[in-house]
Amino acid sequence: MAEKLIGACVFAQSGGPTAVINASAYGVIRAALASDEITNVYAARHGIVGVMAGEMFDIGSEDPDELALLPQTPSSAFGSCRHKLRDPDDDESDYIKILDTFRKYNVRYFFYNGGNDSMDTCEKVSRFFARNDYDCRVIGVPKTIDNDLVGTDHCPGFASAAKYIATSVAEICMDNRVYNTPSVTIVEMMGRHAGWLTGAAALAEISGAAPDLIYLPEAAFDMDKFLSDVGRVYDGTGKCLVAVSEGVAYSDGTFVSEAEQSFTDGFAHAQLGGLANMLCGVVKQRLDVKTRGIELSLLQRCAAHCASKTDVDEAIAVGEFAVKSAIAGESGKMAAINASREGGYSFAAALMPLTAAANREKKVPREWINADGNYVTREFIDYALPLVNGEPPRVTENGLPRFARLKKVLV
Amino acid sequence: MAEKLIGACVFAQSGGPTAVINASAYGVIRAALASDEITNVYAARHGIVGVMAGEMFDIGSEDPDELALLPQTPSSAFGSCRHKLRDPDDDESDYIKILDTFRKYNVRYFFYNGGNDSMDTCEKVSRFFARNDYDCRVIGVPKTIDNDLVGTDHCPGFASAAKYIATSVAEICMDNRVYNTPSVTIVEMMGRHAGWLTGAAALAEISGAAPDLIYLPEAAFDMDKFLSDVGRVYDGTGKCLVAVSEGVAYSDGTFVSEAEQSFTDGFAHAQLGGLANMLCGVVKQRLDVKTRGIELSLLQRCAAHCASKTDVDEAIAVGEFAVKSAIAGESGKMAAINASREGGYSFAAALMPLTAAANREKKVPREWINADGNYVTREFIDYALPLVNGEPPRVTENGLPRFARLKKVLV
Repeated sequence: MAEKLIGACVFAQSGGPTAVINASAYGVIRAALASDEITNVYAARHGIVGVMAGEMFDIGSEDPDELALLPQTPSSAFGSCRHKLRDPDDDESDYIKILDTFRKYNVRYFFYNGGNDSMDTCEKVSRFFARNDYDCRVIGVPKTIDNDLVGTDHCPGFASAAKYIATSVAEICMDNRVYNTPSVTIVEMMGRHAGWLTGAAALAEISGAAPDLIYLPEAAFDMDKFLSDVGRVYDGTGKCLVAVSEGVAYSDGTFVSEAEQSFTDGFAHAQLGGLANMLCGVVKQRLDVKTRGIELSLLQRCAAHCASKTDVDEAIAVGEFAVKSAIAGESGKMAAINASREGGYSFAAALMPLTAAANREKKVPREWINADGNYVTREFIDYALPLVNGEPPRVTENGLPRFARLKKVLV
Repeated sequence: MAEKLIGACVFAQSGGPTAVINASAYGVIRAALASDEITNVYAARHGIVGVMAGEMFDIGSEDPDELALLPQTPSSAFGSCRHKLRDPDDDESDYIKILDTFRKYNVRYFFYNGGNDSMDTCEKVSRFFARNDYDCRVIGVPKTIDNDLVGTDHCPGFASAAKYIATSVAEICMDNRVYNTPSVTIVEMMGRHAGWLTGAAALAEISGAAPDLIYLPEAAFDMDKFLSDVGRVYDGTGKCLVAVSEGVAYSDGTFVSEAEQSFTDGFAHAQLGGLANMLCGVVKQRLDVKTRGIELSLLQRCAAHCASKTDVDEAIAVGEFAVKSAIAGESGKMAAINASREGGYSFAAALMPLTAAANREKKVPREWINADGNYVTREFIDYALPLVNGEPPRVTENGLPRFARLKKVLV
């Protein structure tokens, strides 16, 4: 049993939000408010930047009923940042500011909610505290729609984005069948390096309305092969629905969205409309068919109205587990998810070293993509499908989402 | 009491789908299957084109449990078309084909589900039958996300699209607050001539996350005024969220999306990415700020997962009312919605002449847009808000929408 450590805790959110990032916040907050060891619960304004500036909200001042709405509130409730800390061996200035704030408020617990960059931040902060003999327990709380964190079965935030994508793609696919006229539709998903989100489009098969072709960054893109794939499906049915990751790249590593399109003119400004519209232009020119490009854009990461209950439950559980682990004496770890798919889906929170997650990217295994590189395999679907299950409770007002209204009292 | 008319009925869907077009289908089908006068229930494949070709599905062969899922199934379940009939005085050929099919199957009831073009079709068909002494009762069933049908308080399909738009805009607005960095986001809604859908973005105020500026086609667009509006909001808060209709036009009637952008180069191909991206380009050039364009695209009309219960209930009720009215002897009418907002919202189905709806467009009254032409007024919000209320039952499978699976047996 670790020594009892009494003091305040700071929770901070980092990087791009997810539909359930505030569910993790709620898990942390609920466990922290309930603990005897934690004297005050603070949430940093705009992540680590707020910690450095000493800008923190006093969560104890918030109405518990409003806090209870956090799990259905999209976007980072306390603000986020994209600040990457320098290595403390090169420049300690950021760390000194953090330590000043922590000393000032007697902060003894730090929970940082973010992706692989944030786990790196956690790890550096943790090392710096140790080197300066400041007793503070640091636990990383994972989040990212990209699902690219190493060491956890999946990452809170991915499942809700996947559910939004699968639902939307199923609906778009149904819509495409309306007219008896030929068309090619290309839907673009986020994921600069990892194709987890784009692969989730395949889950739409559950609704009987899945895309015909799916292209992930993990398989090299070939424009001629792509046009031949689309042409083949289109010739057969007069329709073709494509799901494509913004991050697809040619075999030399060049992003398709950024490559010079030398085989066509007029697309020099294609980046304005994104990859889907650019590919539509190419398809239209080659196949002379009506096309439509759809970019799911920000809604992938903020559509809380379509969140997965599994995701919400796990996000809360992981947040709570982070706090309980810290109170039990753990530090320098990330709260991860262990999942079992044998005989029904189940999950458990677990700890892993921060260093295992920091600055690494988990990609879709190449063997979960078919040999042609134009669809995911059954393994991918079996992996992702249990995660999108269930509808969380949804409080609405006049039929529209009721978000948490926080006072945000600065300490 | 009208004479009892015994025979089959044909239901057909026309034009672009809505999230609840199949709820209207369900209303028609349920009432028709339950009636003693209607001997067979047929649904045309791809609207009036299917009627002309004699391609109709036998609804009596369908599993009632699957039919019951129609209200949560997006897209036109039986297929749609965009075929505009010629005036029978000029060319009777289409009408003769329709009459041939109707005679062959003893069709005595025709329910056509569509927008103002389809009401015109209904009216012409009705006139042609009368002139040829063919006893058939014709009732129009309204649908359109655009809400531009004259003579009905609103149109089935609008409310669910409005709910999707308000929900999505609220979520996007929350997402925009995540970082402490300046940005301008422009969200584009459908509506070539009427701004009902774009105005619905204002309903996001219920969630405490509404756009800063809203531009409808009903108020002439001025690029300098627009840039000054955006600049003013942006200077104050470092952020600006704009909702804009694809149909905004300059005072000379030219669509902004199609106008030559003489004040900038490089946007000659802006139509590739739509209006939002084009406006982002202009804002970026003038204000030197990070921008993001988001086009809600097809999801506005097919996002059944975000349908309004009020809309679903009304769509079913209007479909049933159409059938009951025809059985009671009515013909040559459109089923419309009368709504009351005094002391709580209520609605009732009513009949109106087809000629009153055919080929006309109901626009947002100019006085429901503020004097500056950059937001809707309280009147608009009071009109639209009750319509998005309520969550319909949603059957899911593995957390994803369960659409009706129909056998579609051709007669």
